[in-house]
Amino acid sequence: MAQRGEDDLILDDPPLAEDGGRPDDRVDDERHDEDNRLKPEFVRRVREALEDEADDELYDLVEPLHPADVADLVELFDADERSDFAAAVPDLVTSEVVAELNDHVREDMMEALPAGAVAAIVEQLETDDAVQLIEDLDADDQRAILAEVEPEDRIAIESALSYPEETAGRLMNRDFVAVPEHLTVGDLIDMLRDDTGHWGDLSNDFWEVFVVDHKHHPVGTCQLSWILRTPRTIALSDVMKRDQTLIPVTMDQEELGNMFQKYGLISAAVVDDSGRLVGQMTVDDVVHIISEEAGEDVLLLSGAGDGDINEPIREAYSSRVRWLIANLGTAVVASAIIAFFGAAIEQLVALAVLMPIVASIGGNAGTQTMAVAVRAIATNQLTRANTRKILWREMRVAMLNGATVAVLIGIAVGLLFTPMLGAVIAVAMVVNIVIAGLAGVLVPVIFERLDQDPAVASSVFVTMITDSMGFFAFLGLAVASGLVSAG
Amino acid sequence: MAQRGEDDLILDDPPLAEDGGRPDDRVDDERHDEDNRLKPEFVRRVREALEDEADDELYDLVEPLHPADVADLVELFDADERSDFAAAVPDLVTSEVVAELNDHVREDMMEALPAGAVAAIVEQLETDDAVQLIEDLDADDQRAILAEVEPEDRIAIESALSYPEETAGRLMNRDFVAVPEHLTVGDLIDMLRDDTGHWGDLSNDFWEVFVVDHKHHPVGTCQLSWILRTPRTIALSDVMKRDQTLIPVTMDQEELGNMFQKYGLISAAVVDDSGRLVGQMTVDDVVHIISEEAGEDVLLLSGAGDGDINEPIREAYSSRVRWLIANLGTAVVASAIIAFFGAAIEQLVALAVLMPIVASIGGNAGTQTMAVAVRAIATNQLTRANTRKILWREMRVAMLNGATVAVLIGIAVGLLFTPMLGAVIAVAMVVNIVIAGLAGVLVPVIFERLDQDPAVASSVFVTMITDSMGFFAFLGLAVASGLVSAG
Repeated sequence: MAQRGEDDLILDDPPLAEDGGRPDDRVDDERHDEDNRLKPEFVRRVREALEDEADDELYDLVEPLHPADVADLVELFDADERSDFAAAVPDLVTSEVVAELNDHVREDMMEALPAGAVAAIVEQLETDDAVQLIEDLDADDQRAILAEVEPEDRIAIESALSYPEETAGRLMNRDFVAVPEHLTVGDLIDMLRDDTGHWGDLSNDFWEVFVVDHKHHPVGTCQLSWILRTPRTIALSDVMKRDQTLIPVTMDQEELGNMFQKYGLISAAVVDDSGRLVGQMTVDDVVHIISEEAGEDVLLLSGAGDGDINEPIREAYSSRVRWLIANLGTAVVASAIIAFFGAAIEQLVALAVLMPIVASIGGNAGTQTMAVAVRAIATNQLTRANTRKILWREMRVAMLNGATVAVLIGIAVGLLFTPMLGAVIAVAMVVNIVIAGLAGVLVPVIFERLDQDPAVASSVFVTMITDSMGFFAFLGLAVASGLVSAG
Repeated sequence: MAQRGEDDLILDDPPLAEDGGRPDDRVDDERHDEDNRLKPEFVRRVREALEDEADDELYDLVEPLHPADVADLVELFDADERSDFAAAVPDLVTSEVVAELNDHVREDMMEALPAGAVAAIVEQLETDDAVQLIEDLDADDQRAILAEVEPEDRIAIESALSYPEETAGRLMNRDFVAVPEHLTVGDLIDMLRDDTGHWGDLSNDFWEVFVVDHKHHPVGTCQLSWILRTPRTIALSDVMKRDQTLIPVTMDQEELGNMFQKYGLISAAVVDDSGRLVGQMTVDDVVHIISEEAGEDVLLLSGAGDGDINEPIREAYSSRVRWLIANLGTAVVASAIIAFFGAAIEQLVALAVLMPIVASIGGNAGTQTMAVAVRAIATNQLTRANTRKILWREMRVAMLNGATVAVLIGIAVGLLFTPMLGAVIAVAMVVNIVIAGLAGVLVPVIFERLDQDPAVASSVFVTMITDSMGFFAFLGLAVASGLVSAG
């Protein structure tokens, strides 16, 4: 039974551990579909129990779920269903569930609670999760909550908040296992087993032990499996790997994600400016960062801002409309070019019919190249060392694409309209696709060199270039070829 | 010294471990820039040494690099530089480097080597890495290489290849630690320490021990830290967590990534159809999958195919041009609508000047909503249980966006042209942005329900809808309002 108490400190989800004997209940059961999403029927039953105030039935339905699934369930609810749910089965809205909630949903729920209740949740969370909960709240709310938190936790949280958002200092865990070099494997195991000792109340998971010198600088890392496979008498300094990846407290989360991915890390030591070990990052926290950073490019490039379906409508509107207005500006530039050729269009309305094709296919080609360039920059594959090579590669792809599309559209227009118009649209198409390829690489590369996120603004510029050049090349060539007169 | 031998089996990169004492040499040194990319000056020096055939200098330059960095370096080279490099410093092109290489670059290099040489590399790799190396080669090459591989490795590789690509059976590691329930902590540690015993030649990392029943069905999982913190006499069945996430061999890698992320897994047991434990997945392999799956949406939505800058030009051309031709089709539909209103445009050339604005802003609004929907589907946030709620949310955002943009463009056109034309473009804009919002959610949702990847084809349809509706709404309203006659 003493064992039980110790486990509780470490287990992610003690309520489930007691449950026993249903090893595969997270896949293919009556609550989840084959993609591990909650089944609509199950959600409907929960909703009905909630509406009918059948609290016992609600409890029985939800209790077997993993905290991450309870969080998914809460996210599916409307705002008032969420507070009803928390009031009906408070025991099931554990700190683990709160930690797993979507940021917007969590912020919403926390703002509805009194400071004391939030403080009680904060104290149950690990520091990194507590920081995540608090960082998005108003300064006033933060102060009110921190005033209710135990001094030790408060100091840890305030220290984390002193680092900029999305840096290692903010994200790291302050509990970890660090030992001096002279220890043997046996010493370490004895220390870890002593639950009245230094690590008796270590609450979070650890996968590696950090070995430090007398200044608390990390000198090596031991995987737990190496310790388990080594005789007790061997010194840790003979087991540890000296070469290790250290994370400065100021490192940005995108870079952190890249490091974990590139070097296949499970955990890594975080060091302050003087090289002292101050925290650890573990991969289970970093996977969220990796997924977020990799997934946000599509949202940023499309101008969808945060792009989270839980984002309040007002925020979604404000970030998206800004982008639409920016694009309105670029569309006006393209329109001005058309207006310049107004007389030509009056002479030959076929120009108005065909011109969007040139602009649109150029836009698609530009978007393709830009997406490739933005991902390659984000994954550190496109660097100063190979920009020229990649630019040349994209030019060759663009010329092949341009030639193919030009032949198709040139023949079709030549047959349906006149051969001369076919020739004009074919040449305009090649020109625009090649320019699109150039812009698709250069615009993100230039933003990156200016220390701007290439995913944020590249799209506006590339679209402006391909639209304007599409109309200009097509209408300009129509005039230049003598098909129509300039006006 | 016996210790050394045991470590070598486990360490990722033994050459570096010997190196010692430069804990932070992967950040901020003379080879890496602040974002941990290889500096162009360093790459230039390597290139010069390679050209000058100064093999010793080349070795000294490259030897301190982590295998993942050597792989980055090789990727920056041209094809002939790659083979020169492998010939000049073969010792540095280790199996770890090969495992870290980009798929296209690896395929290229392997195709240039004789089967025997590839087989030698394959035998040094863990099964999952060996499978990755072999799976992209021609069937003939595969057979030639497998014929040269030791029977034991060959059977493991062939068994992996018998599962479909991108499933757990293909990706899993076949080495893992599984023990019967009745074992105590002490028994397990003794077994792990015995390097002549069952796990004496266990070559890969492990972070958890799987407990199995007599049918080899998993019944629980122990984190190594729990084992280290528990007295020797306690039975593993009292330490293990019974509730665990099991991965069926047939699970797709996207789902696998979602599971690891959602439940914060470090490793997980893979089971066959009869529930027997047959392998493990560890998070260091899964992070690549998570990043790839999250990052590919932007490439798929833009029609950039694989979108890898190392992809051969022919393949890049073939996947991108297909998409451009599909978009040519949709652009032709939009053109046909313009042609239908040809007479209207002849009467008022301002229609031709302004119509691309309506189509383009509608396209942007549709892309925003589509990006949000595609990401929400990929992360299991948009499901059958909340489709209606999200659709309504997006409709409200679209109406707000539409109203804002309509007011701006309406006033501007009203002042520059005529009030009536301002009213026409304003109404057309609202109509098109609302339709774009509807299409942006519904098109990906429908593809998902049809078991198609919503990222692959949604874009073509959404663009066709917003382009066509933009032209139709604007030109149609111009006729309906009596601004121009139908022809």
